Amino acid sequence: MITIRSAKRSDHDAIWAILEPVFRAGDTYAIDAGIGRADALAYWCGPDQETFVAEADGAVLGTYYMRPNQRGGGRHVCNCGYVTARAAQGRGIARAMLEHSLGAAPRAGFRAMQYNFVVSTNSRAVALWRAYGFRIVGVIAQGFRHPEQGYVDAYVMYRALNAPDPE
Amino acid sequence: MITIRSAKRSDHDAIWAILEPVFRAGDTYAIDAGIGRADALAYWCGPDQETFVAEADGAVLGTYYMRPNQRGGGRHVCNCGYVTARAAQGRGIARAMLEHSLGAAPRAGFRAMQYNFVVSTNSRAVALWRAYGFRIVGVIAQGFRHPEQGYVDAYVMYRALNAPDPE
Repeated sequence: MITIRSAKRSDHDAIWAILEPVFRAGDTYAIDAGIGRADALAYWCGPDQETFVAEADGAVLGTYYMRPNQRGGGRHVCNCGYVTARAAQGRGIARAMLEHSLGAAPRAGFRAMQYNFVVSTNSRAVALWRAYGFRIVGVIAQGFRHPEQGYVDAYVMYRALNAPDPE
Repeated sequence: MITIRSAKRSDHDAIWAILEPVFRAGDTYAIDAGIGRADALAYWCGPDQETFVAEADGAVLGTYYMRPNQRGGGRHVCNCGYVTARAAQGRGIARAMLEHSLGAAPRAGFRAMQYNFVVSTNSRAVALWRAYGFRIVGVIAQGFRHPEQGYVDAYVMYRALNAPDPE
């Protein structure tokens, strides 16, 4: 049973414990691999975004944020980022967070959701987003330098919310 | 004769005078139209980016910034933003800044340049970027709410630097 709730300050240790190995690995997020706790938490839990945690059996096993992807005339499209604790992969945490975000985003007034930089080699994520209606609407050729695979493409992925897909 | 140089703190008044009407209009940049001077200058002249001004006849008539578009594995691609003083449009200021940036970016170690959010109705900018080898590599359907035209598309535009186009 996975429950998802807004993150509190007291979750910061758990959030950092989830983020740190993912950021250190440097193969899915375009974040400096040496980033420190304070900068990582500022990025993930900043004042202009909502941050959530996914819990099961009393443990925080995942976290995601939601924020406007752009300002001004672009603020009706949100951006989210999701990370599952490595030890909890395969238990449906990412899917639960995705579903939660797809419900929360239109309630927050967003009309669409966009991922700006999905590393093409992150095939598990790409497959999940696709299964939930996201399309690859942009390709940044060799936009990501993968620590093992070298320069690989990054995708812009997008889906409309609560409305027919605009294309 | 247009000269381009790094911006100094003493240029901030001139930079804000150029940015303010463009941000207030809200039809080309995805920035809150009500943004204040301090936030605008923080956005344009932040510590992780280089900011330049274009001068002619002793007056600052344009400004641009350059920064890594992503961190970590994405930091070899830069992002730039350019604004020309309204009264100086049509004098080649934007083109001069673009050419300057295309020279400066590879010297700074960037392998490609990306614009994340070119409003499709900004046809003058789109035409200029295209003329300099940028391609539309992504379309955000109805990604921008134009103050007069309503929801319009936004483009991701991209070009490689100093190397064959990776596609």
